[in-house]
Amino acid sequence: MAMRIYGDMNSGNCLKVRYVADRLGLAYDWVEVDTMKGQSRTDAFLAMSPMGQVPTVVLDDGRPLAQSNAIMRFLAEGSDLVPADAYLRAKMDELLFWEQNLHEPFVAGSIFQVVYLGKSPTERDPERVARAEKALDLMERLIAGRTWFVGDAMTLADIALVAYTRRAPLGGFDLAGRPAVTEWIARCEQALGLAPLGVAA
Amino acid sequence: MAMRIYGDMNSGNCLKVRYVADRLGLAYDWVEVDTMKGQSRTDAFLAMSPMGQVPTVVLDDGRPLAQSNAIMRFLAEGSDLVPADAYLRAKMDELLFWEQNLHEPFVAGSIFQVVYLGKSPTERDPERVARAEKALDLMERLIAGRTWFVGDAMTLADIALVAYTRRAPLGGFDLAGRPAVTEWIARCEQALGLAPLGVAA
Repeated sequence: MAMRIYGDMNSGNCLKVRYVADRLGLAYDWVEVDTMKGQSRTDAFLAMSPMGQVPTVVLDDGRPLAQSNAIMRFLAEGSDLVPADAYLRAKMDELLFWEQNLHEPFVAGSIFQVVYLGKSPTERDPERVARAEKALDLMERLIAGRTWFVGDAMTLADIALVAYTRRAPLGGFDLAGRPAVTEWIARCEQALGLAPLGVAA
Repeated sequence: MAMRIYGDMNSGNCLKVRYVADRLGLAYDWVEVDTMKGQSRTDAFLAMSPMGQVPTVVLDDGRPLAQSNAIMRFLAEGSDLVPADAYLRAKMDELLFWEQNLHEPFVAGSIFQVVYLGKSPTERDPERVARAEKALDLMERLIAGRTWFVGDAMTLADIALVAYTRRAPLGGFDLAGRPAVTEWIARCEQALGLAPLGVAA
């Protein structure tokens, strides 16, 4: 039985897992979950995945795993998306944890307010927006003069960060003043075979 | 030259790194950083660690690494704190990412309001408190009937989670209604050689 990915096609966290599975040529069945209808909080879903979140994958042996970055790290173990060098792998992890702590809550949280809740950009929570802008600014400083965030090749750090960063304009963020981030997004999209979202201009 | 750990002895994120280094018998020099005085945002600190956060370690070869869970994962690679089995390692990562995304921002954030900002528990941000209570409730469900969070031995998941959970009473949280968490904290403290904080009753 192929791996099942329970996910939401509007969620960057879920798309991360899809990007990695597609990049590695892994077989999977995608099960669309409507979190706004509570489908990730049913008794059946919680029995499978107690955190009640997507993405959750059920591996081909039936064992479940949640948390986008943990899933990516598991699926990509031993591939060219994870540096073989221990220090570079740690630098990748540094960005993966930073993404979940100081990028996703604010960038994805702001996108959520616009895309899911239908707010206008001016109605977004100002503190969340300010912290998202700071996260995007830090990305610009880190990627300036570089091709990828860690080492000389695309890693999970790029995939984790690009998932919501390429969608940031959907949440009212202007990437035009961040040229290094803008170029890196295009580079990631090309490497992952993704069509540009076409909202960044 | 021994590894340097730049940290704040009141920060669970920093203490995590200390717990792991002590548990593994790693030599280090602790450099106390007063984040409230901006010491993690100076030009010199940012040149070393662009995220501007503690903990940051400088390895014995001079290379820096930030983000508590990434540091722990690097230091503990190949030790008994990281499961050898790939799936159990992924389940450990699941909890490490959940901790940074849905536990630390709310539990540590509430502790910060009380310990650093001097607020009374009733003045804490209600939404943050509610989400912290949910995180602690999920921990209670996950650890009930178990000894450790992943597999049959203490892993980095336990260390990451216990750092702020044992300090939760300092932030106004009552753990008395969470007996499995309370017992697990005592178990972690014994395994790590930590004196109980004595505020949980």
